[in-house]
Amino acid sequence: MPAPRAVVLLSGGMDSATCLAVAIHDGFEAHALTVAYGQRHAVEIDRARLVAKGMGAAAHRVLEVDLASPGGSSLTDAALDVPRATTHDEIDSGIPSTYVPARNTVLLAVALSWAEALGAHDLFLGVNAVDYSGYPDCRGEFLEAFDRLANVATRSGVEGKPFRIHAPLLNLSKAAIVLRAAELGVDLAVTVSCYDPSPRGTPCGTCDACRLRVRGFREAGIRDPAL
Amino acid sequence: MPAPRAVVLLSGGMDSATCLAVAIHDGFEAHALTVAYGQRHAVEIDRARLVAKGMGAAAHRVLEVDLASPGGSSLTDAALDVPRATTHDEIDSGIPSTYVPARNTVLLAVALSWAEALGAHDLFLGVNAVDYSGYPDCRGEFLEAFDRLANVATRSGVEGKPFRIHAPLLNLSKAAIVLRAAELGVDLAVTVSCYDPSPRGTPCGTCDACRLRVRGFREAGIRDPAL
Repeated sequence: MPAPRAVVLLSGGMDSATCLAVAIHDGFEAHALTVAYGQRHAVEIDRARLVAKGMGAAAHRVLEVDLASPGGSSLTDAALDVPRATTHDEIDSGIPSTYVPARNTVLLAVALSWAEALGAHDLFLGVNAVDYSGYPDCRGEFLEAFDRLANVATRSGVEGKPFRIHAPLLNLSKAAIVLRAAELGVDLAVTVSCYDPSPRGTPCGTCDACRLRVRGFREAGIRDPAL
Repeated sequence: MPAPRAVVLLSGGMDSATCLAVAIHDGFEAHALTVAYGQRHAVEIDRARLVAKGMGAAAHRVLEVDLASPGGSSLTDAALDVPRATTHDEIDSGIPSTYVPARNTVLLAVALSWAEALGAHDLFLGVNAVDYSGYPDCRGEFLEAFDRLANVATRSGVEGKPFRIHAPLLNLSKAAIVLRAAELGVDLAVTVSCYDPSPRGTPCGTCDACRLRVRGFREAGIRDPAL
């Protein structure tokens, strides 16, 4: 029996690379999907290509969906500053300016469309609700609502072949993700987590994503190979 | 007080043009959104431009999202035939090959993203569950699931400013839509409903969408100005 297909959302960051490794480890033929939505850290798209190739994804597709033109996020608008570490070590509470309106809804929607066209019924995404930036669309509640939607919105769902949304990192700490990645042999050297890296991908070291990554490696007791 | 903003999905067909008219009639500042997803009837995008301009939409945006490359629909794959009238006058039951995987989920997702960036909390779409092709994502159940999703997925939803999904044509017959359009002064001459029109927009007359339109005008007792 051939391996069942899955669509895996892949950003070029550490979490989605680990998520792809989990999907492959779980026996899926992984079709990686990267959405170029106008993120200022477009270097992550090149890194996603390296990750997909390095991990042996069955396919890798880069889909353009312009979420940047309307503005509303420091992650897509170079005129806005991304939040930086201040004197304290905590990530600010509340939803930060790096939130991109409805981004994960759009990502899952296009993943669902591709999955249905491929005959896949499994979608993977690397969201995490523990050491995260506070985005509403990185929570279990969001995933459950999308799952319900997927199964009334599609031919497959209506015909009794439901979709499953997998978020294997949802309840892991960043340190636990680092350890899981190491265990699965993910090459984290090519991943980039920073919200505002240099054009070549050097992380800034001070944005929320960098700070969460540094803390994760420190707590895992592993050196970050990307630094 | 300025008019509240709404995002209106606009395809160039009769239903979404009528939906735009309803939104404007209801007092919204209407921001029309057309998604170029690779539909074979791309002439509808030009028609959407005419409709948005003619109706006085506050803005009109055409967003490209390639749902065609993966295949899976006769609406995006010119190598597949769209279903035609056979000897009987009924639309076949079941979900037809013109179904585009998860299309309305993608459409609402990008509309939600734009709405949140605009500060709009109202989304309009012209789906209809009476005289329709049998698509799962044209039913009330789908809209309710998307509404629930929107309000856990977004900053606005989480912060207590919920989104509302408006589908003012959902429970109207095609004839009732024709009458509503006439009442609101919609110029239906520029709309094109056909799944497979000529490059200049002449309808084929035999696909499901043409047959539903013809029947709607006939039952409404009005001549179709587009013919």
